[in-house]
Amino acid sequence: MSRSASEAAASAVELAIDQRLTVATAESLTAGLVAATLADTPGASGMLQGGVVAYQNSVKEGVLGVPPELLSAVGSVDAQVAAAMADGARLACGADLGVSTTGVAGPLPHDGKPVGTVFIGVATASGSAAYSYSFEGDRPGIRAQATAAALERLLECLVGSDLPHVK
Amino acid sequence: MSRSASEAAASAVELAIDQRLTVATAESLTAGLVAATLADTPGASGMLQGGVVAYQNSVKEGVLGVPPELLSAVGSVDAQVAAAMADGARLACGADLGVSTTGVAGPLPHDGKPVGTVFIGVATASGSAAYSYSFEGDRPGIRAQATAAALERLLECLVGSDLPHVK
Repeated sequence: MSRSASEAAASAVELAIDQRLTVATAESLTAGLVAATLADTPGASGMLQGGVVAYQNSVKEGVLGVPPELLSAVGSVDAQVAAAMADGARLACGADLGVSTTGVAGPLPHDGKPVGTVFIGVATASGSAAYSYSFEGDRPGIRAQATAAALERLLECLVGSDLPHVK
Repeated sequence: MSRSASEAAASAVELAIDQRLTVATAESLTAGLVAATLADTPGASGMLQGGVVAYQNSVKEGVLGVPPELLSAVGSVDAQVAAAMADGARLACGADLGVSTTGVAGPLPHDGKPVGTVFIGVATASGSAAYSYSFEGDRPGIRAQATAAALERLLECLVGSDLPHVK
């Protein structure tokens, strides 16, 4: 994992613990790397509630509660899906904040989206948001960039930035 | 991740796809590394259903269905808990096989168990099993060894070894 991802994770762990906030993850293309990077930091058990690796849509629906009609309409790589995943992680794990990743790591396009398309979602009790990215690189590179982006967005959320609306 | 973990993951992905079997993970101390290592292999979407990062006991109970009375009686670092987590992952994600990790990554002992104590669980529709380990090393080292052990146990399961009873 890149230095920036580790640093963002360490800062997020510290800030969450200071504010007594808990975090849950929902990961598609990163498949556990966001949660694992948070857990690299000793003391992460003070804020990391848990997470869901939602690789297949059935898990996005069944465990995270993403509406099947949304997935049918827009596919799994979408801003609204990312926001719903983040909110679903928060609710499933009983956490204050949720952060999610969905995107195309490659090597092939998926759901009509090109390789490198990534959406990061964040959610709190007061709302959810999603951010879109277009990364370049190979499969591990895209997953690493998505992990770093998710940790940066989580950190922003913890430093108190407003949550923008889903675009 | 170690070469052996990556190789075990690649073999598990190939064997599962050949047999049209799906896999789900339930991870405590590894916090997503088992799922992420499987997903490193292109084509993993053909067998990886999803997984649960069950860092806190509330997630082991609420999402994976581990009995609260079991957790109260034995703590979270236990063979029966590992087996129940693997079965819970299988059921929550609708997969044929479940594999789980629970243990003490350190730096401090947990639930009365020394640092390095790890249990790996595996489950299919016909039963579940757990294996105990005592690893040495620092926090990242113990988590890496636990990840490799989980992937080896999953691979064994896929090559058709019998599932022993929970010890």
